[in-house]
Amino acid sequence: MSSLEQILTAQRRLAGVALCTPLLHSPLLDGLAGRRILVKAESLQLTGAFKFRGAWSALTGMDERARRNGVLAYSSGNHGQAVALAARMHGIPAVIVMPAHAPAPKIDGARALGAEVVLYDHATESREEIGVRLGRERGLALVRPYDDPLVIAGQGTVGLEIAEQARRAGVASADVLVPCGGGGLAAGVSLALADRAPGLRPRPCEPEAFDDTRRSLAQGRRVANGGSQHSICDAIVTPIPGELTFPILRDHCGPGLVASDRACLQAMAVAFQRLRLVLEPGGAVALAAALSRPECIPGDTVIVVASGGNVDARLFCEAVHGLR
Amino acid sequence: MSSLEQILTAQRRLAGVALCTPLLHSPLLDGLAGRRILVKAESLQLTGAFKFRGAWSALTGMDERARRNGVLAYSSGNHGQAVALAARMHGIPAVIVMPAHAPAPKIDGARALGAEVVLYDHATESREEIGVRLGRERGLALVRPYDDPLVIAGQGTVGLEIAEQARRAGVASADVLVPCGGGGLAAGVSLALADRAPGLRPRPCEPEAFDDTRRSLAQGRRVANGGSQHSICDAIVTPIPGELTFPILRDHCGPGLVASDRACLQAMAVAFQRLRLVLEPGGAVALAAALSRPECIPGDTVIVVASGGNVDARLFCEAVHGLR
Repeated sequence: MSSLEQILTAQRRLAGVALCTPLLHSPLLDGLAGRRILVKAESLQLTGAFKFRGAWSALTGMDERARRNGVLAYSSGNHGQAVALAARMHGIPAVIVMPAHAPAPKIDGARALGAEVVLYDHATESREEIGVRLGRERGLALVRPYDDPLVIAGQGTVGLEIAEQARRAGVASADVLVPCGGGGLAAGVSLALADRAPGLRPRPCEPEAFDDTRRSLAQGRRVANGGSQHSICDAIVTPIPGELTFPILRDHCGPGLVASDRACLQAMAVAFQRLRLVLEPGGAVALAAALSRPECIPGDTVIVVASGGNVDARLFCEAVHGLR
Repeated sequence: MSSLEQILTAQRRLAGVALCTPLLHSPLLDGLAGRRILVKAESLQLTGAFKFRGAWSALTGMDERARRNGVLAYSSGNHGQAVALAARMHGIPAVIVMPAHAPAPKIDGARALGAEVVLYDHATESREEIGVRLGRERGLALVRPYDDPLVIAGQGTVGLEIAEQARRAGVASADVLVPCGGGGLAAGVSLALADRAPGLRPRPCEPEAFDDTRRSLAQGRRVANGGSQHSICDAIVTPIPGELTFPILRDHCGPGLVASDRACLQAMAVAFQRLRLVLEPGGAVALAAALSRPECIPGDTVIVVASGGNVDARLFCEAVHGLR
């Protein structure tokens, strides 16, 4: 069970370690959107994504004996880098099981942070099987990417910060658009906002072809994505909402939103030009939804979480290419 | 005369208007540099550069009657956008005199913010003459880019924030590398640090071919740059240190540092990859100096100001092209 108390504990553990990321805005972005857009820039977090919060929360919250041989994570990249850094800061080894097709900066980043990266073929191998074997052989503690109360609590500190920053900005009522893969960030933010800023309504945002959370919320039960889709939003292409995260989303979230890959690239270009932020496609999906689906969002202010910025230079430049 | 009291006044006027920008760091950047690098990300400031602080300070500090017909600025771009926004927020017109070869995002940005942009030919026309004529004809108040106590005071708020953020990070002693054109930012930061964090030593950073401040500091008097040089650091290629700024720099700064254009491009790539920041060449010059001249910097920690991020997509992608 995840609770506000756990989020507050995570916040105390993260104080002085993680960055309280700024809530940015841009008059020209507001003009483009026709309403005020406030952007929570988690791409500026350590390792370039909100994931460090959950990883740090999990490692500091687990029994010292459980983690003494090191930790293990499955990850498309951002969670892996986060666990790698948190492990290094704890002085313990980290093994990250990543798909061979993960973006090079994410693989390189985890290695540069001292982790052992085990690549697997997404089509023919099971990361769970590789992980279970490695974990057993070496006595490693698994740090799940989202279905872990400590991880959800860490991500929830984003919500505590949004609640406080929105209050200071005079925003009592607005939708809060949150990129959503397994739902750890959206769940944590939802719990925090429900307690601290009930006028702020969390809404998960997903790539069009991976809208399992949107459909699950609409149906009131966990439904999966089809298996044959593709999206450039590598960070958030999960198969089905989490077992622990979905009940939280169901209780607290507004309807899900989707954005096309093309809209994500355009949002990356807008973030480059108007906010001077580097976002990755999955990290830009909430901004993309805000810009491409304005008719689905009420009010004169919307808050979007920009959740990550680990993108290779080629794809980034493809996104900003349309700009002069 | 500029004073700490003026900076504190500017800080009060900027509260809730400008962003308190974060002091970022990256474990992988630290590894690359061989010391801890703390990056004050003023590229995230409104209009993408620290300049908004000075412009807001000047407009709010000037007599209401002086500004009622509007304001005028000469600018290579960042000061112009800042004055345009500050004027719009005051509900008064702004005229910005900009070189025709200024980066398109800076010209477009000022126009999009509602300013009238008057372009001039850098080779054949005098921006001062154009400005004096326009100012007289229309009764516009000139907002100087750096030689104005109110502007220096506004930029000095960056120094107040650095002092506080360094204290929280446990840094009592370090060099603070500051991009330097006319010297408004360096002067303001110097005054603030001298009072609030005397263990932090400000050092102006310039492009190799425009090191007038470094040479002026070495000689104890204002000396000019040669006229035939070029640099991609468009934001900070001024002819000579300011009349008001130089005495402040002389009293408070350590030796100046320089970086090549190539080092600035490399620093932009590093900022993209390790900090997920979009920096323009002139905004990256302090980071470039930290990375390319480590032997000139003492200590295990260095603070660098990343002063701006208004760069066109083509040049930015040229900078990050070397990355995978």
